[in-house]
Amino acid sequence: MSLTPRPLKDSERLDWLRLIRSENVGPVTFYQLLNRFGTAEAALAKLPEIARRGGRSRPLGIGSKPEAEAEIAALAKLGAKLVAWGEPGYPPYLAQIDDAPPLIAMKGHLHLTEKRAVAVVGARNASANGRRFARDIAASLGGNGLVVVSGLARGIDAAAHEGSLATGTIAVLAGGIDSVYPEENRALQESIAERGVLLAEMPPGTEPKASHFPRRNRIISGCALGTLVVEAAERSGSLITARFALEQGREVFAVPGSPLDPRCRGTNRLIRQGATLAEGVDDILAELKAQLSGPLAERRKSPFSAAPAAPYGESELEDARKKLLELLSPSPVAVDELVRQCQLSPAIVLTVLLELELAGRIERQPGNTLTLL
Amino acid sequence: MSLTPRPLKDSERLDWLRLIRSENVGPVTFYQLLNRFGTAEAALAKLPEIARRGGRSRPLGIGSKPEAEAEIAALAKLGAKLVAWGEPGYPPYLAQIDDAPPLIAMKGHLHLTEKRAVAVVGARNASANGRRFARDIAASLGGNGLVVVSGLARGIDAAAHEGSLATGTIAVLAGGIDSVYPEENRALQESIAERGVLLAEMPPGTEPKASHFPRRNRIISGCALGTLVVEAAERSGSLITARFALEQGREVFAVPGSPLDPRCRGTNRLIRQGATLAEGVDDILAELKAQLSGPLAERRKSPFSAAPAAPYGESELEDARKKLLELLSPSPVAVDELVRQCQLSPAIVLTVLLELELAGRIERQPGNTLTLL
Repeated sequence: MSLTPRPLKDSERLDWLRLIRSENVGPVTFYQLLNRFGTAEAALAKLPEIARRGGRSRPLGIGSKPEAEAEIAALAKLGAKLVAWGEPGYPPYLAQIDDAPPLIAMKGHLHLTEKRAVAVVGARNASANGRRFARDIAASLGGNGLVVVSGLARGIDAAAHEGSLATGTIAVLAGGIDSVYPEENRALQESIAERGVLLAEMPPGTEPKASHFPRRNRIISGCALGTLVVEAAERSGSLITARFALEQGREVFAVPGSPLDPRCRGTNRLIRQGATLAEGVDDILAELKAQLSGPLAERRKSPFSAAPAAPYGESELEDARKKLLELLSPSPVAVDELVRQCQLSPAIVLTVLLELELAGRIERQPGNTLTLL
Repeated sequence: MSLTPRPLKDSERLDWLRLIRSENVGPVTFYQLLNRFGTAEAALAKLPEIARRGGRSRPLGIGSKPEAEAEIAALAKLGAKLVAWGEPGYPPYLAQIDDAPPLIAMKGHLHLTEKRAVAVVGARNASANGRRFARDIAASLGGNGLVVVSGLARGIDAAAHEGSLATGTIAVLAGGIDSVYPEENRALQESIAERGVLLAEMPPGTEPKASHFPRRNRIISGCALGTLVVEAAERSGSLITARFALEQGREVFAVPGSPLDPRCRGTNRLIRQGATLAEGVDDILAELKAQLSGPLAERRKSPFSAAPAAPYGESELEDARKKLLELLSPSPVAVDELVRQCQLSPAIVLTVLLELELAGRIERQPGNTLTLL
């Protein structure tokens, strides 16, 4: 099985990288392809045909070998390493989420990524009290053997990294491993590279764009047993991270605050919705108690990688394609819901969706929902 | 039935007052006696005998007629009125609690006591923000037709009264209706007497003592559909009021605050324990929605007033007394628990407990628990 955790050979790593850098291939599709065709090499050979079946007329952009080689060389030059799902060093809790990055660039003290972690995130325009709280609780988490994960944003994120620099801190970057953002955190980012770990899913040289931040946030929550939100306005990025944590089956903690402070609206709302109210490290340790001892999470396959590859006749596929295209719309719909409504087998639904996705006719959204483009 | 809501005749009111002012007679005992003997007059005649059966050798202090007449005259002179359980003007939600005061002194615009109310309580050493929040939310509650109940303490209580002075405010005093406490709230207390309502369970001339405050707090929560706690340290009086609200089957609301502010420890803990997080009046209105329309609460009898009066032989009573005294201890035990453990009928248990209580050998605590003295 291609998805058994094991170190990749160099040629495999190259194929994995080419596959994930191919047009319309996201992590969920990546694992489906690997499961169906056994190896990334075999999947790469099939990509054009699958996209054509999904209705694509233009050629599909396939990650080239020279590009992949250049990316690996650039990472090496930057002192970073590309670690694949299932390899030693890949964060064990991140490996459990459906859309875990097949490959992730890492720089720093890589042993930290295998330890249990808690994410600490929050407002960019944090109050002095909020920053102090984030720094103190990050230090306390570190004192209790937990690594702190955050996003290196201004405000709460930066304070959380500062507080855990001595004990273990992981910064997940929205751009490439060499992108510095925001500029004011340059020195902190350098310190983390020296004393902690930087992680990046995007290729080196990528400047962070708005769309990268939610993708980055799923990695922050995915690395951690739970996510603590310290100050967050309504509709803020930290709430997206909290939502990912919930979807990933992780704990959500929120620090309460005065209703008179708009920076606490988001955290108070999380508490109202069921997040654990956290006033200090003890509240977090108490909630995570069962998960703090014993073996780490298993690096198990995502459930979506387990879709069987079955042979279907063209007319059968054509029928399924028609039904599914009717059911899809620009509003996100869950794959489960599609399967229920079309009354077809999950296997044929996944086959057709894979084709449509590679053809660029549908797009996968966080939370395993799909939209028609 | 003596406990049907109806206006009392003057002579009855005098007997009720004598009975509740008698030694070892609290509200729960009062209703049991009234139920058993039909009238307060009949109960007064039986008190010495019951206490003797409970093991009392010294004579029991019975409320005298001249004292009761003097109390009523003093109240009249102060412009206050003594309203009995079940009479018009008696707060309808207060009438529902087990230990509702049989008589309560009222001064001010008595029509306010028959309206739906929310209690707003909190820290004496409140922050400027906390006071502002209390004042604003009290005004908003008033704007939504709700009367605000509080305890006229410094800080949050005073701010809540100030915010609701124009729309309807009820202050429950720990001492007599003429006691001014704290001195700094004298002007506010006078304003409430003119524009709102003052309530007092204790006789006029009573200066508030420490033990009066918890008794007062049960009245605050009892008058209200729900209690909102705005800033409260750990182990503060406001948390006692919140506990009473829960025991009375009422809602508890708490305003979240920074973990760095010790004045928010109590409210954050309440939220953690299940209180509704309140950031504004909408959170309160949403939670109370079902109770804000339709008829007011019925003035129903407390369940403990319904214990049947049954004739028991002396040896039967003697056995029961022995069993119960063995089960009782200085740690509070619930009446239900006693009934379960002694395996006697609830009726005989209540009979014996009444005797022991009047004899001064046991004491009833809030929450219908008993301790051996």
